[in-house]
Amino acid sequence: MPVNYATPAADQLLPVAGVRLGVAEAEIRKKNRRDLTLVALDSGCTVAGVFTQNRFCAAPVQLCRAHLATGQEMRALVINTGIANAGTGEPGRQAAQASCEAVAGILGIAAEQVLPFSTGVILEPLPVERLKAGLPAAFADLKADNWHAAAHAIMTTDTVAKAASRVVAVNGKKVSISGLSKGAGMIKPNMATMLGFLATDAGIAQPLLEQLVKEAADASFNCITVDGDTSTNDSFVMIASGQSGASFADASDAGWAEVKAAIIAVSVELAQAIVRDGEGATKFITVAVQGGKTREECRQVAYAIGHSPLVKTAFFASDPNLGRILAAIGYAGIADLDVDGVKVWLDEVLVAENGGRAAAYKEEDGARVMAQAEITVRVDLGRGQASASVYTCDFSYDYVKINADYRS
Amino acid sequence: MPVNYATPAADQLLPVAGVRLGVAEAEIRKKNRRDLTLVALDSGCTVAGVFTQNRFCAAPVQLCRAHLATGQEMRALVINTGIANAGTGEPGRQAAQASCEAVAGILGIAAEQVLPFSTGVILEPLPVERLKAGLPAAFADLKADNWHAAAHAIMTTDTVAKAASRVVAVNGKKVSISGLSKGAGMIKPNMATMLGFLATDAGIAQPLLEQLVKEAADASFNCITVDGDTSTNDSFVMIASGQSGASFADASDAGWAEVKAAIIAVSVELAQAIVRDGEGATKFITVAVQGGKTREECRQVAYAIGHSPLVKTAFFASDPNLGRILAAIGYAGIADLDVDGVKVWLDEVLVAENGGRAAAYKEEDGARVMAQAEITVRVDLGRGQASASVYTCDFSYDYVKINADYRS
Repeated sequence: MPVNYATPAADQLLPVAGVRLGVAEAEIRKKNRRDLTLVALDSGCTVAGVFTQNRFCAAPVQLCRAHLATGQEMRALVINTGIANAGTGEPGRQAAQASCEAVAGILGIAAEQVLPFSTGVILEPLPVERLKAGLPAAFADLKADNWHAAAHAIMTTDTVAKAASRVVAVNGKKVSISGLSKGAGMIKPNMATMLGFLATDAGIAQPLLEQLVKEAADASFNCITVDGDTSTNDSFVMIASGQSGASFADASDAGWAEVKAAIIAVSVELAQAIVRDGEGATKFITVAVQGGKTREECRQVAYAIGHSPLVKTAFFASDPNLGRILAAIGYAGIADLDVDGVKVWLDEVLVAENGGRAAAYKEEDGARVMAQAEITVRVDLGRGQASASVYTCDFSYDYVKINADYRS
Repeated sequence: MPVNYATPAADQLLPVAGVRLGVAEAEIRKKNRRDLTLVALDSGCTVAGVFTQNRFCAAPVQLCRAHLATGQEMRALVINTGIANAGTGEPGRQAAQASCEAVAGILGIAAEQVLPFSTGVILEPLPVERLKAGLPAAFADLKADNWHAAAHAIMTTDTVAKAASRVVAVNGKKVSISGLSKGAGMIKPNMATMLGFLATDAGIAQPLLEQLVKEAADASFNCITVDGDTSTNDSFVMIASGQSGASFADASDAGWAEVKAAIIAVSVELAQAIVRDGEGATKFITVAVQGGKTREECRQVAYAIGHSPLVKTAFFASDPNLGRILAAIGYAGIADLDVDGVKVWLDEVLVAENGGRAAAYKEEDGARVMAQAEITVRVDLGRGQASASVYTCDFSYDYVKINADYRS
């Protein structure tokens, strides 16, 4: 059960002119589930992406990077679940290439105009013949109002499909933004996450889009963690079709601030949905660190708290075991941190200052906040102006159950 | 239940001439348990220690550092469980100071000659009056053959007491070594661990002992992890009484190599005992990384594997889900790692090479190794001559249970 998250209804997910989606059951790993998604882009779209920094990055990630680097116009995305096609060496690259060629044949485009994505079990070979056999059904299913089905077709251990839409009116045009994400475990994206897709009918020039996808990832997918494991397949791709008539080439263009804010808001919603559906999650935790010398040291502290199994099990137990938070701050790697200057709050309750428990702190106040389904841990490092936030979930029996059972 | 570990019997733990131990029930946090240990050292001992790098280091750790820095002869250790006296600010330092003064009063020494240690809940005040009230009973209990009782009196969430002894004959003398350790959670020592003590009746000159305690910590307590959480109270202290008649002032002295090897072996045994008794542990895992450019990058990779909740739950499930190990290697932070040169073994079974699954690998071979209680994951990075090992345990339902329940 995700924490305060439900998949939007199909009619709440807006079509984005220029983008059509189709899904199919290709039996990649199991029968009777939608596991193949085809996204067809009209000519004229700009596309940019960010990908995992994991050195064992998956074959499709390698191809995505190579295809985007050609400078050609991207015309399709193909996404399978079940098998991650990671840790598969040269045969894996050939399988990803064959997928692109098959999509290219159906759509009448070049293989370099296709971006492939896979998610699922690592080290297993991708059954590329089954993928190819499923493509005609996905092609036949292509339509603009198919975001709801696609959100379901990219799920793996997710318990709910994740999607979001938003509309902004700028320069007399209506700009639509829709996005999808998936992921529940192996979530500590470094540059992007295990499959996030976002499309808008705004026109966004390639350099501006490339800058935006990095900024949006930095504000969203790069701020979440479930278990600290950076996946081999993390990918976040942004598509701008331009078919709304509103187009942007420069960050100073009128209306850009509004469109950018809306795109980042959708990105954050999609990223947070992954944490809300984190494996075994019962709580959604925001760790907001301020008063640091640099954003990087704030992120270090936020991740130390967000990754600590002791902190996460205390959240699960609704136990205000604050010493565990202090310990995590202390080992986060700031060698010259003056702990007497650190303050910690649970929501609005000041719990620690002057190197110890706050004088006015009462255990029942901490316990009240810890019992909530959404909690903010706020830390002031007291040494600068930088800040950073990380979103995470608690650590429950079900996390162990899910990951001890996965594959079986 | 610890993995392949049982506390040695009382008569297997050797007295170390010059060192006497006494325990008492002081009701620091709970009634009816031994929670206070006093160690009295004869004049003539050298003492050296290494302590946590956590910035929120506990008040007793701060006093240990200060007292050792005075250059005075250390004459006593006082150890309480129940309360860690960490995150307690200035009142915590005063409480630790008062404990040292009380011990000094009883033994007729200076407060600066006492090293204080605390372990237990963070952020709670140390009930120093109860500690002081318990000291006379601990004093009355002082004896040389009391290592077994002391090993029990320093336990917190440990399910077994941890102690080890060894004898070496050098230069016509019999040198005895005995040690204690405790800890099961918040275990990722950085410089030392949550309470390890080792004493020998060899004489070891102060500079040599200071070098040895670092080397021994580096080979033992600094190579273990249960949950990746570096404690606020980690301390590892080594005592050399000289009363065996065998003394060493320089690393080139005859017999030093044997004594040093035996001391490191006892340190490793004590450190591994902590992992074998790791919270919820059902398996003992050695992660041995070789072929790195530096020892540090080998440690990075070993810790990435040893900390990954996904890898640890796969061990719990006896599931050879090798992709999770590859993913951890890939995100360990070696930016220029060529994954095609990486090899991975489970015990003697080669499971991955050339960027993917080894051609000859069979799932049943991996499953057979994963079913064992002791498993070695060996990684060859294929880029140098350095190596490093880390010892860890699996991640089970009981880890969550123990840490969701602790304090309650």
